[in-house]
Amino acid sequence: MKSRFAVGVDLGATTVKTGLVSDTGKILYQNKLPANGNLGPPAVINQIEASVRDVLTHANRKRPAGIGIGAPGVVDDSGTVKAPPNMAGWDVVPLKKRMKRIFPSQRIEIENDANAAAIAESKFGAGKKYPNFLFVIWGTGVGGGIILNNKIYRGPWGGAGEIGHISIDYNGPECNCGSRGCVEAYVGQRYLSQRTIERLKSRPDSKISELIGGDTSKLEPEIISQAAQQGDLLAKQMLSEAGTLLGVALAGVMNVMDLRVSIIGGGISAAGAFVIDAIQQSVQAHVLKPLRPDIRVMQAKLGNNAGILGAAGLVL
Amino acid sequence: MKSRFAVGVDLGATTVKTGLVSDTGKILYQNKLPANGNLGPPAVINQIEASVRDVLTHANRKRPAGIGIGAPGVVDDSGTVKAPPNMAGWDVVPLKKRMKRIFPSQRIEIENDANAAAIAESKFGAGKKYPNFLFVIWGTGVGGGIILNNKIYRGPWGGAGEIGHISIDYNGPECNCGSRGCVEAYVGQRYLSQRTIERLKSRPDSKISELIGGDTSKLEPEIISQAAQQGDLLAKQMLSEAGTLLGVALAGVMNVMDLRVSIIGGGISAAGAFVIDAIQQSVQAHVLKPLRPDIRVMQAKLGNNAGILGAAGLVL
Repeated sequence: MKSRFAVGVDLGATTVKTGLVSDTGKILYQNKLPANGNLGPPAVINQIEASVRDVLTHANRKRPAGIGIGAPGVVDDSGTVKAPPNMAGWDVVPLKKRMKRIFPSQRIEIENDANAAAIAESKFGAGKKYPNFLFVIWGTGVGGGIILNNKIYRGPWGGAGEIGHISIDYNGPECNCGSRGCVEAYVGQRYLSQRTIERLKSRPDSKISELIGGDTSKLEPEIISQAAQQGDLLAKQMLSEAGTLLGVALAGVMNVMDLRVSIIGGGISAAGAFVIDAIQQSVQAHVLKPLRPDIRVMQAKLGNNAGILGAAGLVL
Repeated sequence: MKSRFAVGVDLGATTVKTGLVSDTGKILYQNKLPANGNLGPPAVINQIEASVRDVLTHANRKRPAGIGIGAPGVVDDSGTVKAPPNMAGWDVVPLKKRMKRIFPSQRIEIENDANAAAIAESKFGAGKKYPNFLFVIWGTGVGGGIILNNKIYRGPWGGAGEIGHISIDYNGPECNCGSRGCVEAYVGQRYLSQRTIERLKSRPDSKISELIGGDTSKLEPEIISQAAQQGDLLAKQMLSEAGTLLGVALAGVMNVMDLRVSIIGGGISAAGAFVIDAIQQSVQAHVLKPLRPDIRVMQAKLGNNAGILGAAGLVL
């Protein structure tokens, strides 16, 4: 009989979160440990093991369908994790093989974290009704995952979904990646904060100034989002503008891949319906006319649980 | 036994070209008739029928594997052709069904013409060695097709591959499609000609002026391409710049879909190796760093025969 439970691991550079997940997307138990990403791969793998063992002891002797792991970095078809950002000494680690050695009787699947979150929204969240959509994580940076026919599109080398590095202005500002005008260089955390600080100079009455107590080093998108929720005009304007720019990039992808639906997750997307509306309007204005009536941009549903749920979804 | 021959139909608004094609991609016989695209669907279908019957009489009693048709416009999964440009009275025509009525014992497959050309390059041309690539047609406009795992990626509604309408400048010039800064609005025929006319004012010594006899209404990319082949500096500069801009759009798609190879067909791509080099350099400068060493941009191999070959490829 197919098991109706799975273990989902959401691995980050600072924490590892693991849950026991039912096939309807309920998290029946979960824990959270430091990931020790600064101490090298063996230390991280130890923490994953501890976290999974703890969950297994709470499985009430139900045998799970397997262990799924969502990991930062590029994950190739063999379950090798390459160059996850902010994790020391981690160039190329065959994580699937290592986990299989620790849990030989379990099925193990590993996926990139943005892809895992996309899978979570597809199986359990805002994408349940949509077999094809573009998932976006909009927070520190801009990442994403592509769901085609209810499955993740990984690309030939497992690196698909990098929507943050679509240029929306070939003459635009330089991006970390070496290109110019990438959408992440307009709407990612650092750039959005910088542009808001610029604008604050001529808008000292904005609630944002109050929230950061005049200290611009404290400004981050979370604060802009808070101010927007309290009705601050500058904050709303900054986020709407950013949503419009993000929409330009999404429209290009949706044209090329013939997609009609985009689901937006990540910290900034939670600022309010007006951000999602701004993205929707921009996508609609920039895609080809036959696509326009069917364009749907919506907010992700699973928030911080998407990582655990998507990881479990890999084996469910 | 599987047949080693197929009939391929390359349908355009002005001509219909049909060939008998071997499974190694040889065209054993071909003809060309007016398509009568201005006279409505029944007239066009009559011409397709005449053209196919003629090819069948040249098949030496070999039974072909079927009839493939590459058609302009969007082609859905049921073989219905929607809104092909420049074809009168052709809103939605169930072409596959109509063809099946005419040739009931033949297998019939229909595909969008850009997708058919991509399939041709995949099966018989520059893409034979590459299971995954982005195919581009650069001529009057900019179109394309995406090959994944040696198959065409059609998208959920059959409209995938519209790479001409990726915006490379959200503040850029308005495009026919209603968006702004689409790459087609920089490198498509009309725009490229306009910008060249602008530049000619300060470069009256350019060979382009000579080739058009001073009549700018005669300027088209073919002429720029000719001038470039004769070593004209302005012509080379215009095409290199255009190639660089096209590369920005391709880089975005290659990042998102995790593709490393792009094959460039269409009239302008034939101007010379320097155009392909310009695209290659631009893609390399704009994709994410891990992709750069593997980026290959190359010229399509099949030229005007891609339509017939790709159509035949649908049933081979």
